[in-house]
Amino acid sequence: MAFQEQIPGNHCWGCGPRNEYGLNIKSHWDSEDDRQSVCLFEPRPFHMAGPRDVLNGGIIAAVLDCHCVCTAIAAAYRAEGRPIGSEPIIWYVTGTLQVRYLSPVRLPGPVVARARVEDVGERKTTLSCSLVADDTECARGEVIAVRVPALD
Amino acid sequence: MAFQEQIPGNHCWGCGPRNEYGLNIKSHWDSEDDRQSVCLFEPRPFHMAGPRDVLNGGIIAAVLDCHCVCTAIAAAYRAEGRPIGSEPIIWYVTGTLQVRYLSPVRLPGPVVARARVEDVGERKTTLSCSLVADDTECARGEVIAVRVPALD
Repeated sequence: MAFQEQIPGNHCWGCGPRNEYGLNIKSHWDSEDDRQSVCLFEPRPFHMAGPRDVLNGGIIAAVLDCHCVCTAIAAAYRAEGRPIGSEPIIWYVTGTLQVRYLSPVRLPGPVVARARVEDVGERKTTLSCSLVADDTECARGEVIAVRVPALD
Repeated sequence: MAFQEQIPGNHCWGCGPRNEYGLNIKSHWDSEDDRQSVCLFEPRPFHMAGPRDVLNGGIIAAVLDCHCVCTAIAAAYRAEGRPIGSEPIIWYVTGTLQVRYLSPVRLPGPVVARARVEDVGERKTTLSCSLVADDTECARGEVIAVRVPALD
């Protein structure tokens, strides 16, 4: 089950599983490297950039942002030895997001994002991330996720 | 008329005026400071973050990205002394995007983004940007926009 399906009260446009207008991304731990997580995202035709056959950069930023923050949440539950979504609820928000665009992502076609937990502090988790389409690394980024009190 | 309404072939999810599933942001030069541009954006209820009453960070990133890149395009036409959209077409893409989230943006309510042209090189334009909601600066960022050949 994806991280997003286990996080309670997640209405998010980027990753809430029941946001019908959202991106509905799904993230899992990488079965071969447990510091990494993987996200598969299928862009819709209207997620284009200026040209019709290129994926919008804001959508790429949103995918990396949500994938990293959900990974920070999953890592925090794992560090406490309990399942995602168990009480007390753990919540993180984005502190900073940096994205470097390396190559256009052509539409249509799926994209794969990977996140890696680089550092876990008491309040801040730093993650590196990368987005690959058609075997090409198209964007690379970093997210600092910040632990906050659980919100409704 | 907004920059986006003058840029030809702009199908973009973030700022294309006719993308019916997009954000449809609109950017203009600031009437009081011609190095600054202003963008008004009205989030939809489904643009929420995890909690229902907070704007998604990926949407914020997308607004700042499109607003800055369109401002870079508008600045390049202005530097050549000709109207946006005149031939030969000028096109920029995002090279890097950095966003620092300062405070949650509460929904509903409009947000205002401002961009400032900080530096114009032959290929790269650097812009700073800021997003304000309810009189509070909620995000701050930087975009490096890169001039590329015009695309269909």
